[in-house]
Amino acid sequence: MKRKLRYGMVGGGQGAFIGAVHRMAANLDGQMELVAGAFSTDLKNSQRTGEQLFLNPSRIYKTYEEMARVEAKLPAEERMDFVSIVTPNFLHAPVASTFLKAGFHVVCDKPMTLTLSEAKALRGAARKAGRVFALTHNYTGYPMVKEARELVRSGKLGRILKVVAEYPQGWLLDKIESDGQKQAAWRLDPKRAGASSCVGDIGTHAEHLGRYITGLHIEELCAEFTSFLPGRRLEDDASMLIRYQGGAKGVLHCSQISCGEENNLNIRVYGTKGSLAWRQEEPNDLRFSPKGEPTRILRRGNADLSDAAKKFTRLPPGHPEAFIEAFANIYLEAAAAIRAHASGKKAAAFDFPTVDDGVEGMAFIETCVKSAKAGGKWTKFAKI
Amino acid sequence: MKRKLRYGMVGGGQGAFIGAVHRMAANLDGQMELVAGAFSTDLKNSQRTGEQLFLNPSRIYKTYEEMARVEAKLPAEERMDFVSIVTPNFLHAPVASTFLKAGFHVVCDKPMTLTLSEAKALRGAARKAGRVFALTHNYTGYPMVKEARELVRSGKLGRILKVVAEYPQGWLLDKIESDGQKQAAWRLDPKRAGASSCVGDIGTHAEHLGRYITGLHIEELCAEFTSFLPGRRLEDDASMLIRYQGGAKGVLHCSQISCGEENNLNIRVYGTKGSLAWRQEEPNDLRFSPKGEPTRILRRGNADLSDAAKKFTRLPPGHPEAFIEAFANIYLEAAAAIRAHASGKKAAAFDFPTVDDGVEGMAFIETCVKSAKAGGKWTKFAKI
Amino acid sequence: MKRKLRYGMVGGGQGAFIGAVHRMAANLDGQMELVAGAFSTDLKNSQRTGEQLFLNPSRIYKTYEEMARVEAKLPAEERMDFVSIVTPNFLHAPVASTFLKAGFHVVCDKPMTLTLSEAKALRGAARKAGRVFALTHNYTGYPMVKEARELVRSGKLGRILKVVAEYPQGWLLDKIESDGQKQAAWRLDPKRAGASSCVGDIGTHAEHLGRYITGLHIEELCAEFTSFLPGRRLEDDASMLIRYQGGAKGVLHCSQISCGEENNLNIRVYGTKGSLAWRQEEPNDLRFSPKGEPTRILRRGNADLSDAAKKFTRLPPGHPEAFIEAFANIYLEAAAAIRAHASGKKAAAFDFPTVDDGVEGMAFIETCVKSAKAGGKWTKFAKI
Amino acid sequence: MKRKLRYGMVGGGQGAFIGAVHRMAANLDGQMELVAGAFSTDLKNSQRTGEQLFLNPSRIYKTYEEMARVEAKLPAEERMDFVSIVTPNFLHAPVASTFLKAGFHVVCDKPMTLTLSEAKALRGAARKAGRVFALTHNYTGYPMVKEARELVRSGKLGRILKVVAEYPQGWLLDKIESDGQKQAAWRLDPKRAGASSCVGDIGTHAEHLGRYITGLHIEELCAEFTSFLPGRRLEDDASMLIRYQGGAKGVLHCSQISCGEENNLNIRVYGTKGSLAWRQEEPNDLRFSPKGEPTRILRRGNADLSDAAKKFTRLPPGHPEAFIEAFANIYLEAAAAIRAHASGKKAAAFDFPTVDDGVEGMAFIETCVKSAKAGGKWTKFAKI
Repeated sequence: MKRKLRYGMVGGGQGAFIGAVHRMAANLDGQMELVAGAFSTDLKNSQRTGEQLFLNPSRIYKTYEEMARVEAKLPAEERMDFVSIVTPNFLHAPVASTFLKAGFHVVCDKPMTLTLSEAKALRGAARKAGRVFALTHNYTGYPMVKEARELVRSGKLGRILKVVAEYPQGWLLDKIESDGQKQAAWRLDPKRAGASSCVGDIGTHAEHLGRYITGLHIEELCAEFTSFLPGRRLEDDASMLIRYQGGAKGVLHCSQISCGEENNLNIRVYGTKGSLAWRQEEPNDLRFSPKGEPTRILRRGNADLSDAAKKFTRLPPGHPEAFIEAFANIYLEAAAAIRAHASGKKAAAFDFPTVDDGVEGMAFIETCVKSAKAGGKWTKFAKI
Repeated sequence: MKRKLRYGMVGGGQGAFIGAVHRMAANLDGQMELVAGAFSTDLKNSQRTGEQLFLNPSRIYKTYEEMARVEAKLPAEERMDFVSIVTPNFLHAPVASTFLKAGFHVVCDKPMTLTLSEAKALRGAARKAGRVFALTHNYTGYPMVKEARELVRSGKLGRILKVVAEYPQGWLLDKIESDGQKQAAWRLDPKRAGASSCVGDIGTHAEHLGRYITGLHIEELCAEFTSFLPGRRLEDDASMLIRYQGGAKGVLHCSQISCGEENNLNIRVYGTKGSLAWRQEEPNDLRFSPKGEPTRILRRGNADLSDAAKKFTRLPPGHPEAFIEAFANIYLEAAAAIRAHASGKKAAAFDFPTVDDGVEGMAFIETCVKSAKAGGKWTKFAKI
Repeated sequence: MKRKLRYGMVGGGQGAFIGAVHRMAANLDGQMELVAGAFSTDLKNSQRTGEQLFLNPSRIYKTYEEMARVEAKLPAEERMDFVSIVTPNFLHAPVASTFLKAGFHVVCDKPMTLTLSEAKALRGAARKAGRVFALTHNYTGYPMVKEARELVRSGKLGRILKVVAEYPQGWLLDKIESDGQKQAAWRLDPKRAGASSCVGDIGTHAEHLGRYITGLHIEELCAEFTSFLPGRRLEDDASMLIRYQGGAKGVLHCSQISCGEENNLNIRVYGTKGSLAWRQEEPNDLRFSPKGEPTRILRRGNADLSDAAKKFTRLPPGHPEAFIEAFANIYLEAAAAIRAHASGKKAAAFDFPTVDDGVEGMAFIETCVKSAKAGGKWTKFAKI
Repeated sequence: MKRKLRYGMVGGGQGAFIGAVHRMAANLDGQMELVAGAFSTDLKNSQRTGEQLFLNPSRIYKTYEEMARVEAKLPAEERMDFVSIVTPNFLHAPVASTFLKAGFHVVCDKPMTLTLSEAKALRGAARKAGRVFALTHNYTGYPMVKEARELVRSGKLGRILKVVAEYPQGWLLDKIESDGQKQAAWRLDPKRAGASSCVGDIGTHAEHLGRYITGLHIEELCAEFTSFLPGRRLEDDASMLIRYQGGAKGVLHCSQISCGEENNLNIRVYGTKGSLAWRQEEPNDLRFSPKGEPTRILRRGNADLSDAAKKFTRLPPGHPEAFIEAFANIYLEAAAAIRAHASGKKAAAFDFPTVDDGVEGMAFIETCVKSAKAGGKWTKFAKI
């Protein structure tokens, strides 16, 4: 397919945050172009957004259903190839299902759905449609996260004993959901966000990050949820103790009320032969501590890294890459999978989060909620 | 008392670690001198130790009981003023009681005793004796930890919401207790260390640090203990979720099997108006993040710090102080209290950990053990 | 101009480094699209590059002269708006002059030309053409560099006393110019790079960074050049002492043979009331130390920053931005200036490096070369 | 000599800074005890100081001459073994000479003398006396500085190409010498400090540090001195370009007016096979970057370090050591040399700065002053 891929976007109108990030990520490598959108339930907003993005007004749609229907009927040389879904959580499943049914590939923000059962249904729909489904757990797009996974896979850490994953933020320390902050409002609203705010939004990133790097799956966990600000119906802070399958242990905590914290996702993995540490706010470094030897600072871009990391690297060492580049790596891989699908060739394995990751993420959220509601009782991981 | 204080030491013979630290801490400020010792149950070791320390051979004792008895009868101008106890845990209580009864002040390593009930008994003995009892929770001797406490006390953090305290080490990742490593051997032996290895040795430091800074006491906790190395009878890793009195939440984890970690005690305290972060391996920095403003790096030695921090500072900013200096601060304050006691003056409040801290520390250990044995059940903090 | 800007590229074929960076920077914000190219003197390379970039084969040109000529005659709705020049140094001036004369705006890599006199001639050509000329001193595109400038401008540093700027790299520690490394080969060849390798490539970035932040101009300097690897005709390491106009002093050193260094451009500015420090490899932090107060860590994305920094910020705090985003900021501003030019409106002041910066940069290089050749003699800054 | 060494102190009365540091360093390891002093030219100050230090009032002397005379006549079992000289610079030579002639060993603060010729005379006196002479270039007492030297010696850095040494401070940014700040007053007074303030006080530490680690000697240098605050007769900021014997190059700058800097002595050494970096404010880390491999963080206390570093280590890794411990290492080695001298045994090589280091340090200061006075002219290193 010797052309840019074409995509449409649902959500991401003016006032939203993550939509613009998806667009920059998609733009970065010049591999795809935005051609259509239903950016907002407010058509005017949607049209203004389209205008700012230099889109053809005829491809700004009133609803996502209309968009799916009309785009599906466009001639092949105009029709979009995939949809990017950047709405609040409750719309992920209906929008994704609609576009899958209409024959489009899907890139969808996380958490994948409102509930685990909805996630399983969506998994079924994706399998049935036979289309690419990519979930933007963007932090696993970082090259040094991929390097971390390679360290584990290569056995350099030995058997994993302990995982500590944190995701503290401070942006909800004030009650901004009452002051018209759009994202805060829906993230704390069970109808639009689901049964969890903090775990659903960021805890699930930390869980995916740990699973991606270590390959470990949770056996059971014990969760403590707190809503520190009065009147909140969902938790703004959560801490979990984890027992992994096979005997490793974990601590995972996340917060939206931790003053001074910006987006401090970080992970440490301790094994019998070595350990590693990575922090999202300085993503070009990966610390690796082999037993009995000094800690090494592995740095993105260097020749001594694995092919898995190199593949997702654009710049030489010392020219830092960051959030958007990592996000773009998810898009790049999804695009590669879509091109492989189009070419009819048997797609090689691609390195992006899938609908299965979405199901496991929703299972994580539901298990946490269940444990927390039971007063912090140890709870078996939900069936996936 | 226009002379150096005189002290004797129980424990700390050749091959031991912490005894030498206590002696350097006591030496540093030229306020006290070592005059007597029962350094080891092996008299030869004790004598060699005494010789290396230039002690008078007549004041090297075969047993601590003999030392207490003989020293108590020496004339006032020779007799030691206090004893420093640096034995394995199981001896703390009997040695301390013996010296208290003989009229000596006591500086004792932590954890204070083998069990909570023993701790309470020792508290009674100390009160009855009316002597100074200092417990070397040395990390709260750091000036920037004192500054942290002042930040909380002054209200600059607002109401405390969340405390994250960690103490990962990696020194027991190999089974060195089987290879003659003396400290490893007794720390993993329930008879000599008590019901816990990891929490007793280092978790209790993290708990004390959090309590010292925030003033918060634990209401209940949920503990997960693991013995990762086969054959260990005590845990080498522990993680706790904490509910504090008054509604704050906590995460505390400690480990002796975390590869690459040296002595990485650290704490973060998040309040409604600000947060702070401190890390023992870079103890001259304290990060303070007031809400809505940039993080400040408070540095030991500067004029803008509180009197509480300045009092325990020896060097100008940028001339780093570290572990021994912090340890020496405990000794300095204990010495000041002993001098105040000797002068008959009503002692002002001194800033060192006391027998009450020792009781609360033992209660913490016992509560953790109880919860862990019950499979990680939420457990009320033991009565103190 | 309600459309994307269109641009062509000269240089940047397969095997080159910086061309791809320019393209990603131009792509990022969806404000411009690549439509034409003369990517290489090797037409096959150029065609392959064009194909990979999904360009229309008819707009791949054999020479830049042909490109300028043909594009200038295309209808307005097809014709490119500006050219991006990413060739080795010796081609900057002829290519830029050609496109300026043909009526195009120019974005050009640095150093601007081979010599100072050539730079002055190009300045004349740009002024005469009345077109936008942007020079990609990309490091001053970082938001926290803009914040640094605002700190100085606002007087928070007081009068500037001392500036320390460093740019160490290690990539030329081996003689890779003999092994077919394309970039190394031309950078160390006086015919293609000019009279300096290290200062021309990176020292000039450090000089621009210092000037951008402080507004200081150099009065005289003393330069020490070294070619550590035998056979090199240009320096691979340089150190300069600087006397600024008005009495401030400077130290500036740069290197291509500093083992372990990646792209460690950094600067510290010390004034009578405060100081600042910034490091390119962790570009989201800016340290600000007001006199008598703790150092503050200013962080990109926060509400407390200046408008100058906020304007060039895409993501919330803690979602790091990096090299490509900073580079894109130069493109964004150049694009805004081009749109303003097209609209006939009097262009407001835009924040990107201009042809005047290029002249001053070339004067810096020539002054350094002159001083170094005279054995490190103090030398007045060349007339600009 | 099975007893503590006994020493007296000249200088270090109340209000002084460095005397107390020397005493803590001497105290730390319990190897020596202070027995006599002429702490101040003000006898009352001296007596009060002696009282606070629990000294026998009969050994507080009115002048250092009296102290040397009287102590020399005391019986061997009382007499002090060495003198510690902590006065302003101008007194170092006369005091040291006096005590050497009286048969005492000497520990002396730096810079060693007022002038180079005075330094050479003192070297002669020390050789003639045949006594131990230790100069407290304390920063080379840090274990990780010793490890750095071992890295160079072992060839792991290859041939040294470039050295960057910095020592910025900010304590003289205000004119505190006019406000009765004792140390500031004498350091900026040519009669008491010599021909240089900033280089004499701290630049010379940076020079010694570089020489200690690399073994390189300076061939010629170019120095720029500035007195930023009006009315100062000595420089408060200095920057030097250096050509080492054998072809390596150096940049060394130091400052007393760099706002926000505390005591930020640091060094980077770049060789053909690797580089290292060390910073005094975080002295337990040493960064080592072998060519083509990730940077390693070497940490004090670990088993993988050299014997040279281990010998000067008191605590396990992660229990930080700092300024006083490094200072104490100079005292420990001087004490070992004194004990060896006393035992009549041929002294093995000891690792402390000697009178020869003092001469080379004074030559460095004089060369810098000469170059600076000549307007920053390249100047051959003074004959030593």
